[in-house]
Parts: sequence; C-alpha cells; structure tokens
Amino acid sequence: MHDVDGMARHPAPDTWRGAAAAMVLLTFDVDAESPILAAGDEYAGHLSTMSHQAYGPRVGLARILDLLRRRDMPATFFFPGIVAERWPDAVVAVLAAGHEVGLHGYTHRSPTMLSDDEQRLELERGLEALRRAGASPVGYRAPMWSTTALTLRALPALGIRYDSSLFDDDRPYLLETGSGRVAELPVHWSLDDWEQYMYIPAPDLGHTIKRPSEVAGLWTEELDGMRSTGSLCVLTCHPFLSGRPGRLRAIERFIDFADECGDVVFARADHLAASLLADDGATGSEDERGA
Amino acid sequence: MHDVDGMARHPAPDTWRGAAAAMVLLTFDVDAESPILAAGDEYAGHLSTMSHQAYGPRVGLARILDLLRRRDMPATFFFPGIVAERWPDAVVAVLAAGHEVGLHGYTHRSPTMLSDDEQRLELERGLEALRRAGASPVGYRAPMWSTTALTLRALPALGIRYDSSLFDDDRPYLLETGSGRVAELPVHWSLDDWEQYMYIPAPDLGHTIKRPSEVAGLWTEELDGMRSTGSLCVLTCHPFLSGRPGRLRAIERFIDFADECGDVVFARADHLAASLLADDGATGSEDERGA
Amino acid sequence: MHDVDGMARHPAPDTWRGAAAAMVLLTFDVDAESPILAAGDEYAGHLSTMSHQAYGPRVGLARILDLLRRRDMPATFFFPGIVAERWPDAVVAVLAAGHEVGLHGYTHRSPTMLSDDEQRLELERGLEALRRAGASPVGYRAPMWSTTALTLRALPALGIRYDSSLFDDDRPYLLETGSGRVAELPVHWSLDDWEQYMYIPAPDLGHTIKRPSEVAGLWTEELDGMRSTGSLCVLTCHPFLSGRPGRLRAIERFIDFADECGDVVFARADHLAASLLADDGATGSEDERGA
Amino acid sequence: MHDVDGMARHPAPDTWRGAAAAMVLLTFDVDAESPILAAGDEYAGHLSTMSHQAYGPRVGLARILDLLRRRDMPATFFFPGIVAERWPDAVVAVLAAGHEVGLHGYTHRSPTMLSDDEQRLELERGLEALRRAGASPVGYRAPMWSTTALTLRALPALGIRYDSSLFDDDRPYLLETGSGRVAELPVHWSLDDWEQYMYIPAPDLGHTIKRPSEVAGLWTEELDGMRSTGSLCVLTCHPFLSGRPGRLRAIERFIDFADECGDVVFARADHLAASLLADDGATGSEDERGA
Repeated sequence: MHDVDGMARHPAPDTWRGAAAAMVLLTFDVDAESPILAAGDEYAGHLSTMSHQAYGPRVGLARILDLLRRRDMPATFFFPGIVAERWPDAVVAVLAAGHEVGLHGYTHRSPTMLSDDEQRLELERGLEALRRAGASPVGYRAPMWSTTALTLRALPALGIRYDSSLFDDDRPYLLETGSGRVAELPVHWSLDDWEQYMYIPAPDLGHTIKRPSEVAGLWTEELDGMRSTGSLCVLTCHPFLSGRPGRLRAIERFIDFADECGDVVFARADHLAASLLADDGATGSEDERGA
Repeated sequence: MHDVDGMARHPAPDTWRGAAAAMVLLTFDVDAESPILAAGDEYAGHLSTMSHQAYGPRVGLARILDLLRRRDMPATFFFPGIVAERWPDAVVAVLAAGHEVGLHGYTHRSPTMLSDDEQRLELERGLEALRRAGASPVGYRAPMWSTTALTLRALPALGIRYDSSLFDDDRPYLLETGSGRVAELPVHWSLDDWEQYMYIPAPDLGHTIKRPSEVAGLWTEELDGMRSTGSLCVLTCHPFLSGRPGRLRAIERFIDFADECGDVVFARADHLAASLLADDGATGSEDERGA
Repeated sequence: MHDVDGMARHPAPDTWRGAAAAMVLLTFDVDAESPILAAGDEYAGHLSTMSHQAYGPRVGLARILDLLRRRDMPATFFFPGIVAERWPDAVVAVLAAGHEVGLHGYTHRSPTMLSDDEQRLELERGLEALRRAGASPVGYRAPMWSTTALTLRALPALGIRYDSSLFDDDRPYLLETGSGRVAELPVHWSLDDWEQYMYIPAPDLGHTIKRPSEVAGLWTEELDGMRSTGSLCVLTCHPFLSGRPGRLRAIERFIDFADECGDVVFARADHLAASLLADDGATGSEDERGA
Repeated sequence: MHDVDGMARHPAPDTWRGAAAAMVLLTFDVDAESPILAAGDEYAGHLSTMSHQAYGPRVGLARILDLLRRRDMPATFFFPGIVAERWPDAVVAVLAAGHEVGLHGYTHRSPTMLSDDEQRLELERGLEALRRAGASPVGYRAPMWSTTALTLRALPALGIRYDSSLFDDDRPYLLETGSGRVAELPVHWSLDDWEQYMYIPAPDLGHTIKRPSEVAGLWTEELDGMRSTGSLCVLTCHPFLSGRPGRLRAIERFIDFADECGDVVFARADHLAASLLADDGATGSEDERGA
C-alpha cells in the first residue's frame, strides 16, 4: 500500500465489524472556549463569544449524556487539556456516565501550526490535565483534525493506542508510525457538526447555520452508503453546537436511522482500537448497547 | 456554578415559564442604516446600500407591527440611539402599538471594539436618544451580540434590568455583574434572521439568502426541541430583512407552529425580566396575548 | 416621508397596479464579460472565466428570448455599454423580439467606486454605445445595484425616466433627484439570480451554486407574499447564469406560479414608469401579454 | 460567430448526439494531493489534509470503477502528471477497466497563474508522466478549469485532439486555436462535485458540504433541462470527494435518472471528440454501454 507519509498502513482484519454492515462511533469534542482562546488572547474578553462556547460544558454536555443514557449508547469524548482544567466537572460527568475520555491536545492549537517542541508539550500537558481530572486516555484526536508526522510518532510512547485524525479511509486500519503501531479510526468533515452549525462573527471559525433535520439527512445518507461499503462511521459532534435543543434531535434521528437499518452496530473508540490491535476484530462486532 | 467571566449566574426559579413547555420572546432589532454607518463613514454615500437598510423603518416595521396586531402578540424592539434620532417615528409607532422598546447601543458598534469610555458613551447616548423619542428602556442588547464585562457592569446604574447578549444557556438566569444583578435572556445565532437572509456586497456583513420557508423550518425545529428542555426561545428579527413580503410569512409560520403546539407561551422581555427579578416566575407563565 | 439622502419620495398613486394583487417585471442584466473586465485587466486573458461570461450573449440570451416568446412575456434587458459594443447582435435580438433595452453603465463598474467625472462618463458612454446599437434607453440600473446621489441626479438630463437601483420599498415610487423627477422601480437581492448561482474561482464575485428548483421556490415565496402587500416584484436574471438549461426552468416555474395565482400581472419597466410619471397608474394595471 | 479570444468556433454538426435528446460524459479529475501541493510546499507536512486527498486513489477510485462496471458505463479520467507519478497504480486501474485517461496538467497549477514557459512545461511533463504510466492521452482539461490562449494553442502539436476547459456553450464545438483545430467539450461549475462537497480548513479551496441527494438533484435538474436544449452534460467528479459512500449514491442517482429518461446517451470524451473531428457526429449518437 502506498505510504505518502512514510508510514505503512495495514487494513484491519475483515472481522473488525463482525456480521454488521457498518459500525458507528459516537464521538464528541468538548472544545468549550479553547478554539476561541487559541485564536488570540484578545478574545478572552469577548464575553458573548466566550459564553457561546461555555454553553457546551454548562448546558449541552448534560443533555447529550442524558440522550446517550436514554438510548443506552456508548460514546467517546475528546477533551483539550485546558477544558479539563476550566471545567473539571465535565470530565467527571462523562466518566461517571461510563463513557470514554480521549485526548484532544492541550490548547486546541493545530499541530501543523506548532514547532516540534510545542507539539510535544501539547500532548504532555494535555495528558497531565486529563489525568488530574480522573481520566486515563488511550486515544488521541488532533485539534482541527490537523496532525503531523511528529505528533503521530509521539503517541505510542505516551500510552496512546489509537488516533482519530486522518481521512484516507472510511474503515479502520493499523498505522506504523515509525515509533510504534497505533490504530487509526478515520474521520471526515461530512460527519462533523461544525461545518453545518458553527457561526460566530469573530474569530473566523465558521459562518453557516443549517437546519438540524438537513444535518441529520447528511449524516444518515453517509451511513446508509457505508452499509454497502462495510465502513466505520465516526460521527463527531460538539456539545456547544449539538447540545442545543433542536440539534439534539438530529443526533437522535441519526441513532433512530441506524437502529432501523438493523445491521449497524455502535461501539466505543477504545474498545474498537483494542480489538484491532489484538489482531482480532471479533469483539468489535457486538453492539455495545445493553439491549 | 462555573464563572468564567467572574460573574455568578443563578438559574431562574422553576416557575419562570409556569405550566408551559417553552416560552417565546419575539424580539426585533431595528438597526436600519446603523450597521452600515458603523462600518465606515464612506458608506453613507452608498445610496443603494443605505436604502437597503432604510427599508426597515420605511416599510418593514409597519408590516411587522401589523402582523403582531393581527396575531395579538407582545414584542420587544431594540433600537440603537442613532436610529431613534434618524427615524423617531419608528419608536413612536412601536410604543403606540403597545410594545416594548429596548436599548441597542448608540452607533451599533460592538462593545468589544471600543475603549472603556466609548462603551460608556454608547450606553448613555443611546439611552438619551431613546428617551428623547419617548421610550423608557429597561432592557439592553449589545450590537452584534458582542458584549464585554464593562458594558454588563454599567447596566444596573443606568436602570437597565435585563441583558439579552449572552449564549451560555437557553433558559433565563440571573447574572451578578459585580455592580448589581440583571436578568439574562440568552440568545442564539440560529434564532436570528441575519445569518439566513443578510446579503450586501459591501461592507462585509453577510452573503447568504435562504428561502423563508427553510428559515421558518430552522426556527420551528429549535422551538420544538425547546419544548423538551423547558427553554426560552428568543427569536430575533430585523425589520429591514424580515419585513419583506415573503419573510413575514416565515414569522407567521413560526407563530402558527407555536400555537399548534398548545404548550408554548409568548411574553415581552421586560415582563419576563421583572418576574425573574421579583424572584417569582409565576407571572411569566401566562400567555400575554389577549385571547 | 423621511429623506435620508435628501431626495423626496412620493408613493405611486394607488392605481399603479390596477386591480392586480401584485405586478412582475421580468428584467435581465446582460453583463457578459463586463464584471470580469471591471475587476482587472489581467482577467481578459483568463479564457475559461471569460468564456463563462460569454455564454450569456452566445447561448443564454437566445434561450431566454425563446422562453419569453413562448410565454408571450414582456421584458426589460439592461446592457452595459461595452457589452453592446462587444456583442451588438445581442441588442439587436432583444429589440427585434419587442423587448425594452435599458442602460447598465458603460464598464459595469459601481458608481460608488468612481469619481464624479467617471460616473458621468459611464452614463454618457453607455448611452452612446446603446444608441449606436439601435436602442433608445429611458431606464437605468446601476452596476452592482450600487448607485450614488450624483449618478441619480444625472439621469433626468440624459432622458432617463426611471431608475431601478434602490431597495427602500417594494412598490414603485417617484423620486425627486434634485435635478428632476424619476420613477423608482426598486429591486432586492432575493429576487436576483446572481446570489443563488454565481460561482467563479476568481475574481471574487460569487461562490454559491443552488438548485434551480430551490431558487424558483425562493422567488415564488417572495411573490406570494407580495400578493398580500400589493407589491412590485422586479425579478432580475443574467443570461450567462439563468440561460443554462436547468435554470431556464426556474424562470418558467416562476412564470407558471404567477399565472396560477390569477391576480398577478406582468409589465415592461418603461411602460410602468411612463404610467407612474403621467400621474396615472391605470395603464400599468393591464397584463401586457397578448392573451 | 463572435470570437472574443480570436479563436473561431464552429458548431458541431447536428448529428453529434444522433437521435438522443442529450448526451452525458462521465468525467473524473483524479487530483489526489496535487491541489494541496500546488497551494504551497508547506502543506506537504499537513498529514490530515494530505490524507483527505489521498482518499481518492487509495479508496474512492476503486469504488467509482466498481460503480461504472456495475452500470456498464464508459468514462474519462483526467490525471495531473504528478498524480500518475505518486499513484501509478491508479492510472493502470483506470486503463484496465477500459476507460479513457486524459491530461490534467502536471502540478495542477492553473495556466492563468503561470508564465508561457511554465505553461508549456506543465503540458509536456504531464504528458510524459501519463505516458510512463501507460496512458496515451488525446484530451486535455486545464487545472481549475482556468486555461489560456497559449495553453490552448499548444495542444494540437502535442497530439491533443480535444479540450474540456471552456464554458461558452453546452454543446460541443470545434475550436480553431490558431495552431490547429480541437474539439471543445464544454464544462460548467454546476455539473462539478467540488463546489458542493469540498471542505478543508486550509489551504482555502472550499468551505461547503452539501447532502448527496441535494447534489444529485442539482445535476439531474440540469440534465433534465438539457433534454430540451439538445445539450452535452459533462459531469465532473473527484474520487477524493465523490468516492465516499454516501456520495457514490449521488452519481448512481444521476445515472438512474438519465436511464429513466430513455432519451439520454452516455459516451467517452475521446470517442465524441473523434466523431466531431471526423466532421461526422453519427458515431457519437450510440449509447456506449454494452446493453
């Protein structure tokens, strides 16, 4: 297989999704104010914009946890370190509800914008902050889904078993970073809520507001296609965006659609990664809901 | 509760919306030419763009007042001071129709772009202009929904009882500004018409034109979700945008939808704020329409 | 009535649309390559982009004329002078089909970007070019709908009887320019095809491509609303955009919708303007189609 | 006919599409990482963005080839030279499936941004790379659909028989470049997937993500209109965008719609061009599918 970045990729064994036609990972990036602060210190005083982001840990997260509880869904929440520091109760609540906490950097700055040392510091400080809040992350997702070779190669030594920041497949694979193997759980912009909902006048992070029912349609069309291609559907939502009342319904519609398909399973990212790394995809095939 | 801006927030008592599932505030920002003039003096000579904004007080406002009269709806209209000076009849018409007039700054410049003194002047001059036009504002909304701690703290001494410029909840709350308590009636970009309709080539204030029926769908999906979360739905429209014939229908569809729900009440912002500050949400629970 | 630009506005007499609920003007801006050339000389060598614009006079215009002939519709075509020079046959074809030709400047540069002398030259050279091509314009529309007081005041002395570049009403009115009275036939971005269809990578003139059926829906929702407000619906299309096969259908759907309403009439802009200036709106009330 | 670029255009003989109402060319631009690398060397280290583009040759292309095989559809794939060098197996796979390989420059830089010498080098190196990979291109499409007179005039001497980079018709025609005649198979932004699906945060190449069913609707509305105008529908998709599961369905819907029309034929670009240059459109009229 072609290795444009010098890292070999090994397809996951065919058993990774068991008998299911497709697998869904429900993932949430709990960014809160971090993307605003990363855009410039001056925004810390923009109270309205900061409050727009604080809606996530203050209101949206609890609603999402409630939805997951009602539907008995496993999920993975990626936190930047500073969010764990600013909103430690959010990490506690996610863990208490039985979900996974993954690492999303420290300040939510893209690795591609940072020096080598800064990239390493982002990972180390982020991990420290999450551990102080009670989490033990084994998964990483780069802020803005903008990773580099250096950041990928730093993951294994930090105990990170999987990455979720690349786009070059819609099925999981094993990535030889050069300093150890990680599982890759690939993502896509069309399965994210940011591009559909994010609007703030400044900083320049988005200017679109779509109807939730349209967004649910975008996601379900992709999942429906994935049932034909045997793919992994990594849905990514942000509590400050998708925690709003009308948008919770879009997540619920997506779950309803998957259920009605009858051949789609849900999993937690760390469980899927563990099964892939054990060279045995079998455990990934079971729907992790209680029912 | 976490206070990222150093201001304590107290949830409104559970009684704030009475037995209703959700409450709607119909609010209108009568910006007229102010956002254009705030973008640069040179635009004063751009007659077409200026006329685009003048459509609000010249044509759109009367249509909105007529719609509210036909549907017997209470509403709140926020005016920048210079609009009250340029179009004093608009303030008179709103008051004569029995609606509330709130403060929307003086020149429609964002507090976040201004010095401390300029922020104070915006509030004082804005209030003076509105009072000269016959209004007695007790509510404030920051231009561009971009407030600062200084502006919030200046409100109580000016007799302002509530603010409507923050995004960190979808239920009303009480905010300790440090110089007095105000009620906060939070807003959101998805319940605004600007992001859906605003198009002018210059200055750079918007480049989107959606179908009114789609916009009505966006708003009703959010209100429908809010019936499950017991929320406050602060709809914000601009007479220069939503006063156009096809767009009036979107507001009417939204009202129809709320009515059909049977469990949604409408209120005026000042009345809701008063009931919250009286530590008694009961009066907010009644639908303020005559019927 | 408030005169923010120092020009008095007189509402049209109530008779302007006769017994009809609303009136439609079908107008077309035959811009061809002019907006590209106005953006910079270097674009003259961008053959693909130039060909994108040439589609209008080369292909789209004839299709639109054919559609109008089939539906027996009167229409008004605004030409920049240089388009009449580059594509004289286009002016001839429009006139031969019995439609009106109006003035759209000379180089399609916005009056707001020009000195006083340049503004005057644009009008004079534009008129000369159109007259050389056989037209006798009595109406003017500013390029980019961006007019100034100087340009408006220059119109009467040039024999121009009406302008169609302002946005502050959706009913026609009479405008005292200070150097003579003109009829104003106001426009709006939501009744234009540019904001819905225009996409070219450079120069920066648009980045959106909507479905024609959605665009037809946008226009018909506005027209439907206008039947309640007794308004003038000035539809504005560009042959290089709306002359394409799928988009011709959007214009046809719009016409179909108006016909099905049964209370909407169509007129030519010059005829409406003449009836307004004669202080007698009666003649504008008749549907100008043969049937 | 008017020759704004000094090149005469001759309409194709009426027989070009035979008895069909419209003809479809399914074309694919296999850009992979080339537009990212063309935007700046620094992006080579942006692994996530590079992987977004690598999805095309790594995953999407095989899915598209499978779809074409299932539907027995002829197609044309345009490759930049560096993509043939980075992903030689992609060229081999396209040829093995019986499809055409055309030239799409070398580095995917727009000819309009290059010096004369650079434009010539782009063509020569691109051809060399494609030939080394086993292809014998007779067709050319300019990167970003941004061609120049120099590039067009260089085509005949390189053995290129047709171009597909201009927009000034929706029917094929013959173009006198000044150094030989080529067939022109014109394109349009509304029949491309890039403007509907392309989203990456940086470089600045797109910020939109539409629902596949909406995109299918956009394309079929245009094709439906083209049945009335007797046009050539050049659909252009990118494997890194349209190779995703949900989007493959949009291509399939488009094919289904064309089939249901019963009067639409499919062809390969080189076959259509050959028939046009033979001054005999007859062979283009047959549907090239086996059935």
